[in-house]
Amino acid sequence: MTLALAQTSAGKVPAPPSYRHLPANADTVRWGCFSTTLTPRVEIDSAGIVTIETLTHPAADDLERMVQGDEGAESVYLWTTDRKGVDRRGAGSTDPAVCKVGSGDGRGVHILTGPVHGRGAKPGDVLELRILDCVPRPGANPDFAGKSFGSNAAAWWGYHYNDMPGGSKREVITIYRVDATGDKSRAKAVCNFRWGPQTDPFRVTRPTIDYPGGPVDHALTDFTFNVLKGIRIPIRPYFGTLGVAPAEADFVDSVPPSHTGGNVDKWPIGKGAIMYSPVSVEGALVSVGDPHASQGDSELCGTAIECSLAGTFQSILHKKADLAGTPLQEMDRPMLETRVEWVVQGFSGPNHLGALGATAQADIYGKPSVDDAMRDAFAKTRRFLTTTKGLTEDDAHSPMSVGVDFGITPVADRNWGAHAIVPCHREEGHLLGPRLIGARPPPFPNDGPARGGACGGSACRKDAPGTWPIYSAARAMRRPSLSPMPGLLCPRTDRRGPARPTAAPSPKPGAGRSGRSPAVAAPGMPRIRRKAPVRAPRAS
Amino acid sequence: MTLALAQTSAGKVPAPPSYRHLPANADTVRWGCFSTTLTPRVEIDSAGIVTIETLTHPAADDLERMVQGDEGAESVYLWTTDRKGVDRRGAGSTDPAVCKVGSGDGRGVHILTGPVHGRGAKPGDVLELRILDCVPRPGANPDFAGKSFGSNAAAWWGYHYNDMPGGSKREVITIYRVDATGDKSRAKAVCNFRWGPQTDPFRVTRPTIDYPGGPVDHALTDFTFNVLKGIRIPIRPYFGTLGVAPAEADFVDSVPPSHTGGNVDKWPIGKGAIMYSPVSVEGALVSVGDPHASQGDSELCGTAIECSLAGTFQSILHKKADLAGTPLQEMDRPMLETRVEWVVQGFSGPNHLGALGATAQADIYGKPSVDDAMRDAFAKTRRFLTTTKGLTEDDAHSPMSVGVDFGITPVADRNWGAHAIVPCHREEGHLLGPRLIGARPPPFPNDGPARGGACGGSACRKDAPGTWPIYSAARAMRRPSLSPMPGLLCPRTDRRGPARPTAAPSPKPGAGRSGRSPAVAAPGMPRIRRKAPVRAPRAS
Repeated sequence: MTLALAQTSAGKVPAPPSYRHLPANADTVRWGCFSTTLTPRVEIDSAGIVTIETLTHPAADDLERMVQGDEGAESVYLWTTDRKGVDRRGAGSTDPAVCKVGSGDGRGVHILTGPVHGRGAKPGDVLELRILDCVPRPGANPDFAGKSFGSNAAAWWGYHYNDMPGGSKREVITIYRVDATGDKSRAKAVCNFRWGPQTDPFRVTRPTIDYPGGPVDHALTDFTFNVLKGIRIPIRPYFGTLGVAPAEADFVDSVPPSHTGGNVDKWPIGKGAIMYSPVSVEGALVSVGDPHASQGDSELCGTAIECSLAGTFQSILHKKADLAGTPLQEMDRPMLETRVEWVVQGFSGPNHLGALGATAQADIYGKPSVDDAMRDAFAKTRRFLTTTKGLTEDDAHSPMSVGVDFGITPVADRNWGAHAIVPCHREEGHLLGPRLIGARPPPFPNDGPARGGACGGSACRKDAPGTWPIYSAARAMRRPSLSPMPGLLCPRTDRRGPARPTAAPSPKPGAGRSGRSPAVAAPGMPRIRRKAPVRAPRAS
Repeated sequence: MTLALAQTSAGKVPAPPSYRHLPANADTVRWGCFSTTLTPRVEIDSAGIVTIETLTHPAADDLERMVQGDEGAESVYLWTTDRKGVDRRGAGSTDPAVCKVGSGDGRGVHILTGPVHGRGAKPGDVLELRILDCVPRPGANPDFAGKSFGSNAAAWWGYHYNDMPGGSKREVITIYRVDATGDKSRAKAVCNFRWGPQTDPFRVTRPTIDYPGGPVDHALTDFTFNVLKGIRIPIRPYFGTLGVAPAEADFVDSVPPSHTGGNVDKWPIGKGAIMYSPVSVEGALVSVGDPHASQGDSELCGTAIECSLAGTFQSILHKKADLAGTPLQEMDRPMLETRVEWVVQGFSGPNHLGALGATAQADIYGKPSVDDAMRDAFAKTRRFLTTTKGLTEDDAHSPMSVGVDFGITPVADRNWGAHAIVPCHREEGHLLGPRLIGARPPPFPNDGPARGGACGGSACRKDAPGTWPIYSAARAMRRPSLSPMPGLLCPRTDRRGPARPTAAPSPKPGAGRSGRSPAVAAPGMPRIRRKAPVRAPRAS
């Protein structure tokens, strides 16, 4: 029985669920990996709700717009000549004698918040994560009040990189402005620049973007303003990376998505959507990151509009013993559900960690293929229809051909993907009846009208859930009293990993996201040396 | 200057454009090929409007529902022991001493209506075809009044065929019912059956579906009714094949799409859309067919809901000399435009006829690849953005990554496809500004309120054009007075092809689609021997 049904059958107004708030700072995030070794940052019961703040990993492309004044982000991006706010960056070694490009070796790039421990979750269970809200994180630099910013990199790992006219290789960063007030639902390019060799505070020079978090020295770049004139990008905020920890390795590179979800990079994973993940380790260990203001299917040039977001999630635990005969019975893959569709995701390597053995994390980078991903998406969709709707295979082929749309995403993550969009909204006469679990989140007390949010694109609007203002992520960011549970927001310690540098400043108690540091670079932040722009950047 | 602008600037109510109506019968269609050798069935000026009826090629899967009583369809499907309504079926030889599986060798399967000659069109020009209307063709068997039917084949050329669990190979036909009154926007499966070896009226037995138009003997098949229970397919009627004749060969197999369009199999090619095609031969020679009530991106199992439709088109000719500096300047590929998006289509073989030489039509069947199609879609989209919006390549990569969705279709036509969806609707803040040519069709006199049409899916509704009832395809089918121009609906004669059998009955003058033959099999139609169904088929 689902939560909603249970509550309805009880015939009374349900009690509010437990609620937690997990801000983003050097104590609650790590860089580039899922890991079974991490101490949970928060615990929730089934049906519990948590607001999770997330930070975007390429914010150092424009520290002035995307980090400065944001205490949580500053603690993460802290990097001076002798210390880093978060030392490990990737799933590689942190031993200076072993790693080649820096601690963690940059094998995995995303800033991930968490993990969140789901009480009672065991391997074999299925975790349902309902995304109740998803909004851009407002910039904290008063020079750009009311705006958020995001960065897009046309980078060496992009699909286009080996197919440049003339053969010239180059990386280009485009900075986008996103309205953070919720009044406008589109992004606009502010400027772009070619990424050139950069020397990090530890005096390591890198010719291309191969280690996350290194501040871009804008004295070395040529900004071009007034780019992409007349072009506005409809925003559809979502979490590029959302998943549970895989059991297969202690530290798992966050770039290739896999059977436990992770870096799926499918844009409907935003407000109103539900993500199902097979639990692989005790407590599930949910992590969220790689926040995107907008991305097209494919993420062609390597990244989306990478923009810090906050999300509010409700976690529902489905125990293994209860799965038989339900659509979740054979859920050995991530799956997404919105109000109008299921999204069945295929990959070049459906479970590379399980299939490729000890060298899986390196080997998966070798053979990305849309053809392989399409074949996986086809096979998974057929199995989804046969198990969920009780169809024979012969019956399943026909609706897959006449009513299911196959698309491509991502081609930026080296475990390329293809997905199937299966329409599911009964009222509009769509394909396969009501939602998988069949229940909207039950009503809860609220304290005012719903906030529109910045998620105004038509695709997002149609998926918008009901009125849940008390759980609004935007409000949570303004409510320091809704801080994490005492005792769980402990200093970040990898249980089996190397000791973490202790230099990261602790967030002020109760400050959370809302505490603003002065509008100057925080201690330890690199100085921003900006050339005089061609056009005044303040307009952005 | 566009037509609309010219008319607006003239400051007066424009005169109605010329109008023609091209019914579908053995004199106006051929089976399976584009050809430069065909006598045009109708001629139109630029801005002229034509209603074109189309027939679906697998209607012999269920003659009772899809052909019987429909005089035009009966003339096409006529096949007795000594004659066929349309002899050639495909782009192959019609010489009995050469062809292996029958006249035309089944190399190309679609029933195509036309060609339509665009007056003044020359190679190098671009033809814009606006699809003003698109509706299912009502069934003519009074036993199924008010309904249309379509057939879906999970066939040997489907993506799934070599990936059957257990390795068993089989072909399955599913018959769908489509509401033809416009009141319902969904299709429902009526029954399915396994396709077994069939012997055609010329006594040739074929183990699989390899020659179009052969009547299925239902005495040899096991119908299963009540299939796909609870599953309804949202319909989105469109033309799977729409294009101009390529210059590269006399007879071109209609299955693989190419640079002149053809079998693109992308479902937005319906009401409200515009298709642009590069003119390859004098008069352009437009053909339309492969009508679909609905199809998902991929057309996975080999076909859509293959269902006869009628469409009303306005043809706008853009002369080569006027293209410089416009978005059509480098239009060497088909392109689709709807109210909200451009669809840039890539293929495994972007121009197989030009690239693969004399054996192109056979070789293109050899190496279908989604990866190749994706690369082509990427390159074409980049070029579209650089030429249409004046972007540099570096500027174009970013919006392609953050705002363009890549999808997969078709994987059924041996020249597999991938497409890019570029949003273009300015009012909703979408990506790249207004429509390509920027004009809705200008208003014309009408004779009453618009008919809703059966195209009721949300995707179709948002693309629905204005009120054009006099050019409604449904009305045209009921208005025999709006018949083709005298003198152009001449007996079908391939200029260089073999003589056509003369046995096809001519349509009654003025009967067009609306003339109903008696509700019995017409002379020459195969007798329908139906087993007693498990459930009463009349309900369908």
